[in-house]
Amino acid sequence: MNIRVQKTFEALFALEDIREMLRDAPPYVSGPEDAEAFGKRISDVRAILNDLEAGTGSPQVSKIAGNLNIRSREEEYINIQPIQAAGRLTPEARKALIAYGDGYSTCDSCRKPFRLDKIAKPPIGDFHTELAQFLNMDAARVVPGARRGFQAVTSSLVKPGDSVVVSALAHYTEFLSVEAAGGVVKEAPLNENNIVTADSVANKIEEVISETGAAPKLVMMDHFDYQYANEHDIRGIAKAAHQYDVPLLYNGAYTVGIMPVDGKKLGADFVIGSGHKSMASPAPSGVLATTDEWADTIFRTTQMTGDVTKRKFGVKEVEMLGCTLMGATLIAMMASFPTVRERTQKWDDEVKKSNFFMEKFLSIEGSEVLSEYPRKHALTKVDTTGSFDVVARSHKKRGYFFSHELSKRGIVGEFPGATRAWKMSTYGLSWDKIRYLADSFQEIAEKYELNVNREG
Amino acid sequence: MNIRVQKTFEALFALEDIREMLRDAPPYVSGPEDAEAFGKRISDVRAILNDLEAGTGSPQVSKIAGNLNIRSREEEYINIQPIQAAGRLTPEARKALIAYGDGYSTCDSCRKPFRLDKIAKPPIGDFHTELAQFLNMDAARVVPGARRGFQAVTSSLVKPGDSVVVSALAHYTEFLSVEAAGGVVKEAPLNENNIVTADSVANKIEEVISETGAAPKLVMMDHFDYQYANEHDIRGIAKAAHQYDVPLLYNGAYTVGIMPVDGKKLGADFVIGSGHKSMASPAPSGVLATTDEWADTIFRTTQMTGDVTKRKFGVKEVEMLGCTLMGATLIAMMASFPTVRERTQKWDDEVKKSNFFMEKFLSIEGSEVLSEYPRKHALTKVDTTGSFDVVARSHKKRGYFFSHELSKRGIVGEFPGATRAWKMSTYGLSWDKIRYLADSFQEIAEKYELNVNREG
Repeated sequence: MNIRVQKTFEALFALEDIREMLRDAPPYVSGPEDAEAFGKRISDVRAILNDLEAGTGSPQVSKIAGNLNIRSREEEYINIQPIQAAGRLTPEARKALIAYGDGYSTCDSCRKPFRLDKIAKPPIGDFHTELAQFLNMDAARVVPGARRGFQAVTSSLVKPGDSVVVSALAHYTEFLSVEAAGGVVKEAPLNENNIVTADSVANKIEEVISETGAAPKLVMMDHFDYQYANEHDIRGIAKAAHQYDVPLLYNGAYTVGIMPVDGKKLGADFVIGSGHKSMASPAPSGVLATTDEWADTIFRTTQMTGDVTKRKFGVKEVEMLGCTLMGATLIAMMASFPTVRERTQKWDDEVKKSNFFMEKFLSIEGSEVLSEYPRKHALTKVDTTGSFDVVARSHKKRGYFFSHELSKRGIVGEFPGATRAWKMSTYGLSWDKIRYLADSFQEIAEKYELNVNREG
Repeated sequence: MNIRVQKTFEALFALEDIREMLRDAPPYVSGPEDAEAFGKRISDVRAILNDLEAGTGSPQVSKIAGNLNIRSREEEYINIQPIQAAGRLTPEARKALIAYGDGYSTCDSCRKPFRLDKIAKPPIGDFHTELAQFLNMDAARVVPGARRGFQAVTSSLVKPGDSVVVSALAHYTEFLSVEAAGGVVKEAPLNENNIVTADSVANKIEEVISETGAAPKLVMMDHFDYQYANEHDIRGIAKAAHQYDVPLLYNGAYTVGIMPVDGKKLGADFVIGSGHKSMASPAPSGVLATTDEWADTIFRTTQMTGDVTKRKFGVKEVEMLGCTLMGATLIAMMASFPTVRERTQKWDDEVKKSNFFMEKFLSIEGSEVLSEYPRKHALTKVDTTGSFDVVARSHKKRGYFFSHELSKRGIVGEFPGATRAWKMSTYGLSWDKIRYLADSFQEIAEKYELNVNREG
């Protein structure tokens, strides 16, 4: 590990040990109980700081709790892993994790009616209002991942045997959420450009009606899918679904938190986002937003009464199972939110960087972009069967030669060993890093005597 | 805020800002891009350390992300909040949060078959094995809170209209998980000591059979309930349930992680624990464990096939929705686990501390313990209607006088303003803090001229 990165972690960890001394001390003393040990630890941090500043020293800590390596992927590398880029925390979220890590840390001031989204201090209630506004929907709740948002919707709308139309590129969690409710998925096919159109969905709805005698209960559609990150015509699809009175679930796992999403303009009945995928938040976290029309269904409160005690828990929402993210994940989401909201306004620049990189990538003869091109997203599926895979076929490391070359240049996140079709994301990289990334790809290609069109 | 606590947070936050400089730097430079700014930040940390050591200085940082206060409840106070005590993080978990906060941080080395509980690096697969062993069950999964464990079981076993027997002290999340599956809760009544016995459950099962013509699909039972933390006869109840071929879900939200739990010995078919409540983990986290007999049902894999693409996602588990805690929460759970496992062996001492405190508490005339007594748990429901509430009735601050007096002594976590029936936990407090806590209660009582039997 880069010694400065190492020393930064060591300093942070040493401060957590100091913090533990303060936690251990009873409240009637103003400092730690053992002043000598405390002073010693402070000196240790000073020594670490000296090393951190000078870039000197040797690693003193290698594991957490005996068996967990320190994770320094984001400090040491350019990370092009397709699903990690937009879940990288902001410094504010990291500070929030430090301050609010403990179990039920959101609940210090939980008062009547005792529900997470009603808590005023910290401003969790306000955050829920802002989340709904951010997506231009009427009501929002945080959920433990987008998939739990899908589940809340399918569990509310889908009965055993019911059909749900999904994209032929639907994420597997959409399949599972329908299956958990006892429903059946029906895929709307792609056109020749790997796009789901409004017509495809309308046809699929017709097909379901003629096959089963009933309209599907829901259309679930990814705005940008997880395979190609191609854009699908959500607005048209919503219109088509609504013509059959079928509500539309907008899967924004690859949009909410990175680009502007206007749920009502798109015609979405449900907007779902992923905190750990696209909102710079820890896992598991996400958002489920809906309209006034559907809020009472999805966020319905319990109707159950205890037969013996006559207990009722009227304010608790069935699909949320009461409270959802009652600690660190939520507070970190909130801490990232101002940055996240702002960054969605800079989406054009992210798309520019994506296209800048892909242009350089395509200059390597034999390389292909499998996603729609020019890119409208930072996530891209590429095919290097005609370029890097040609090298891999005769290299003693096989496809790992490529991972190795990238890693030597401080780049990680491509699927190790994969040199045919694979995915990557340029999200959040500075222009400097983007240029360096592009140069590195070209450099590796030239090293292995692949043709590179450098004029571009 | 205590200035040392304040300065500890400031140092941690300043180091996160330094870390961000390292993240921003491209990999071809060995340190931050702006050496001067970097040096300045290091100097800032040194100045903070000087203040931290000396206990001097003034607060320089008060908010995270503009609107989140620094949470210093665990550093500055003895926290007797009933549900927070055992969810307080270990220093290892806090370090894990620092290192693994980013979104999908568990997924760096996710390889075939692409499922969270199969990941070898970090050792998530091993952790799942250890979790099952820890509970003496055959298989375990992590879940986003105990409630999501209940949901996985009810969603697998309970069909619309089915009955589920719960305790008359069942937590509301058990109600909701049954309601979400379309089932109906039937409460087993308490005896005169607020205990659910095996007979009560057997009678309730008989009642359900005679009323509905079918046995309940499940018995859900809290080993220690959330109201009184009374112990219920799980072993007897499991036997009773099994006589009717009904499986038993053991709700260990108040046991798993603080006392030894032997699932098979207790006769449990499902053991569920809460990470943020009792396993020193961030929310939302928890564990669902089961036996070989039930594993294929609860952890069944998807059977769905895409009608157009013929896609299958065979290894993904329906009730888990694939992966559950794919980031910080899981790694923090893992980091706390060695400490958590060890602390369950010291449960007797926790019970001793609880009883020590309650004895002193009862020395304040008019005070009562509503939970079973002597205590078998660190959580207790007390009644101060005859003591502190007498004062409250004529105090200008009403019940808040008591919160105020406690807070002045560095004690928080009782329900603010409550001076009749309320709950508290002594879990995890050192003997020094326990004695101080007891003294503080007696001192407050005497200040307001309540009789205290000091001979005890």
